[in-house]
Amino acid sequence: MNDLRIKDLSAHVGEEVTLLGWVYNKRSSGKIKFLILRDGTGYLQCVFFKGNLDEATFNEAGAVGQESTVEVTGAVKKEPRAPGGYELDAKGLKVTHATEDYPITPKEHGPDFLLDKRHLWVRSSRQVAILKVRHRIVKAIRDFFDERDFSLFDPPILTPAACEGTSTLFETPYFDLGNAYLTQSGQLYAEAGALALGKVYTFGPTFRAEKSKTRRHLTEFWMVEPEMAFADLNDDMDLAEEFLEYVVQTVLKDCAEELRTLERDTAKLKNVERPLPRISYDEAVEILKKKGSDFTWGDDFGGADETLISEEFDKPVMVHRYPAAIKAFYMKRDPENEKLALAVDVLAPEGYGEIIGGSQREDDYDTLLGRIKEHKLPVEAFEWYLDLRRYGSAPHSGFGLGLERTVSWICGLDHVRETIPFPRMIYRNTP
Amino acid sequence: MNDLRIKDLSAHVGEEVTLLGWVYNKRSSGKIKFLILRDGTGYLQCVFFKGNLDEATFNEAGAVGQESTVEVTGAVKKEPRAPGGYELDAKGLKVTHATEDYPITPKEHGPDFLLDKRHLWVRSSRQVAILKVRHRIVKAIRDFFDERDFSLFDPPILTPAACEGTSTLFETPYFDLGNAYLTQSGQLYAEAGALALGKVYTFGPTFRAEKSKTRRHLTEFWMVEPEMAFADLNDDMDLAEEFLEYVVQTVLKDCAEELRTLERDTAKLKNVERPLPRISYDEAVEILKKKGSDFTWGDDFGGADETLISEEFDKPVMVHRYPAAIKAFYMKRDPENEKLALAVDVLAPEGYGEIIGGSQREDDYDTLLGRIKEHKLPVEAFEWYLDLRRYGSAPHSGFGLGLERTVSWICGLDHVRETIPFPRMIYRNTP
Repeated sequence: MNDLRIKDLSAHVGEEVTLLGWVYNKRSSGKIKFLILRDGTGYLQCVFFKGNLDEATFNEAGAVGQESTVEVTGAVKKEPRAPGGYELDAKGLKVTHATEDYPITPKEHGPDFLLDKRHLWVRSSRQVAILKVRHRIVKAIRDFFDERDFSLFDPPILTPAACEGTSTLFETPYFDLGNAYLTQSGQLYAEAGALALGKVYTFGPTFRAEKSKTRRHLTEFWMVEPEMAFADLNDDMDLAEEFLEYVVQTVLKDCAEELRTLERDTAKLKNVERPLPRISYDEAVEILKKKGSDFTWGDDFGGADETLISEEFDKPVMVHRYPAAIKAFYMKRDPENEKLALAVDVLAPEGYGEIIGGSQREDDYDTLLGRIKEHKLPVEAFEWYLDLRRYGSAPHSGFGLGLERTVSWICGLDHVRETIPFPRMIYRNTP
Repeated sequence: MNDLRIKDLSAHVGEEVTLLGWVYNKRSSGKIKFLILRDGTGYLQCVFFKGNLDEATFNEAGAVGQESTVEVTGAVKKEPRAPGGYELDAKGLKVTHATEDYPITPKEHGPDFLLDKRHLWVRSSRQVAILKVRHRIVKAIRDFFDERDFSLFDPPILTPAACEGTSTLFETPYFDLGNAYLTQSGQLYAEAGALALGKVYTFGPTFRAEKSKTRRHLTEFWMVEPEMAFADLNDDMDLAEEFLEYVVQTVLKDCAEELRTLERDTAKLKNVERPLPRISYDEAVEILKKKGSDFTWGDDFGGADETLISEEFDKPVMVHRYPAAIKAFYMKRDPENEKLALAVDVLAPEGYGEIIGGSQREDDYDTLLGRIKEHKLPVEAFEWYLDLRRYGSAPHSGFGLGLERTVSWICGLDHVRETIPFPRMIYRNTP
């Protein structure tokens, strides 16, 4: 079929071409009808002059409904004022599928209505821009790790006996083997991968059956988790800052048009360059106290605390060495202060909160076994994980970055629900 | 930490270096001890000469257990006979984690034992090679679509009311919304994406709760599914053959060493170049009959039939236009023969069976509604899918390729269980 696309028109100025696509919008001005064509690669203003056309074509251009499927023929003209920089001096219009009463009109719609029509809502220019930024972020993430010799290591989605309690896990009957649980993180598996392949990353969907109904929560979201053998917490922070710089600068370079569509203030993104500030949990608590908060040392930061801390910086801030009591059992303790875990969280600016959580992992068999027992976790379910400390143990570190929160931050969105084609939330698993 | 890796040694010939890694294997020959170091990027023969070393180091090199974590210091030498082409004239050895009685030894182990120890088995050179080929295939797949302007369109994993019966679906309670089901295919969602973005691809895990215990079946496997608007069955076949050529030729170019490790006969892969043969279902049935099969027109091909057909060709073969009765409800019928569906399956050579299944989709609202009713599917669950034919319908086509079967074929494996870090099968969901 015809494979000329709107994004390729710069090579066809002056030529007569035929384009396939959908009527995105239209307006009329006396003897001229303007029709905005979309084809997924861009938008093209098609201009129908009454004087140049037979009456039927001119009338059709006025009558054709929004989201009708059309073939438009005409000459490509350079037009700096038009969106995309080109327009079509239209000669012919063929409606291949006439659409009437398209439910999503240029007027405002509520979020429930739009989520019900998500399969159509993804056609809107704003949603197209977000999905293209998402794609570019995914590609930047994979390129970053591929170029640095990390091996992809896809962890299982269906996992056996729950590791950290079943209250926030989705579960499914699994043949004669009892229940299986949908993974919350591929990290433990990535650790096995790092000891086999040196440096690995996982990148896939993860699940939380949390009853959180906030603008930051999805029940199904994608997470990338690098893990490195022979790497300590400092190496982990070095990787995290290089990674964030790479992803943000790549999107700024390649998605300028999409960010304009989203009216994103990119000044705040341009700052995402190394080095990123590194402060200890203790220093973060000091910031909160100076700002008048009654935060207690030893507590975990809430969303409001994270915003107060990140406001002190013009780029993402890395907060390291948290009280071990509020962090996961597998994190290594700071040899200089056993009460602290060698953990790092990265807080995004502008109130977007934690986007990265990482740590150096406990690599000593006896210490890890002790922690598993302290946390009253089932030792048997962790025998395979303990094997990684029985055989060829090595210092290792890694982190996880939530894709949808990152898309939300880079696009400057109010709600994470627009960052994925079909969002899943506590009150929605359709369409 | 030290980040010199084995793969980078060619730039350090003559230098004294220190490498971090694990003892993969060792042997002894009088006054020389050989230790094979692995670090995930390669294998390095470290040579300990008794005459050059203090006695403690020499003895340690003989005593250190398989999979111990070590730092080896020495001078890099070019040595064409050594694996990788370099060896280390070792001066020092530091054992940072002594391993004893590593359970996987160079002797033969049964598959159940190895699958129980999968977290360690992934350290074996054969498994490392397979996982690196898998990574290269994944990257080739994504690069192929990214370079051709397909937008990534991640479909949901948790899906609502089952589309094609629940007997082969995993299900999970979903808050107050009843059950959700783990996706078997992102295709229907990809269709919504294609009408928004022109060309899209999905690439993620999919699930089948089938009680099939064969060497081709996993319950959890990754699938890539491109979908194109304004594309018919011929366009779909054009894409499929260009895609297979790209993936196979890329792996041949970039994974020569891994394929050698796997002892893959690559002659049969070199043939995977366009054009691929295209035969109709009718022609495929003729082949079976000529070979003495009692196959009945109208039946679906079984594994043995696929092997008989594919033996006629020295590269993958595309079989198109199947009886509509054995294909899915959403496939468009052949306008020249209403009994046939505009479907295509691609059969891999060497008995690896179907690796691609695709079709042109029914794009007419009334026809599709009729098919849904004929198949006794719940119309309400398909209202959103029908919307794609109500509003801006267009001819569109796509296909799905199963990642693990493709890895199995390209690597020349007997069983699909080695193609993914942690395989899930009817009788296994651990570790």
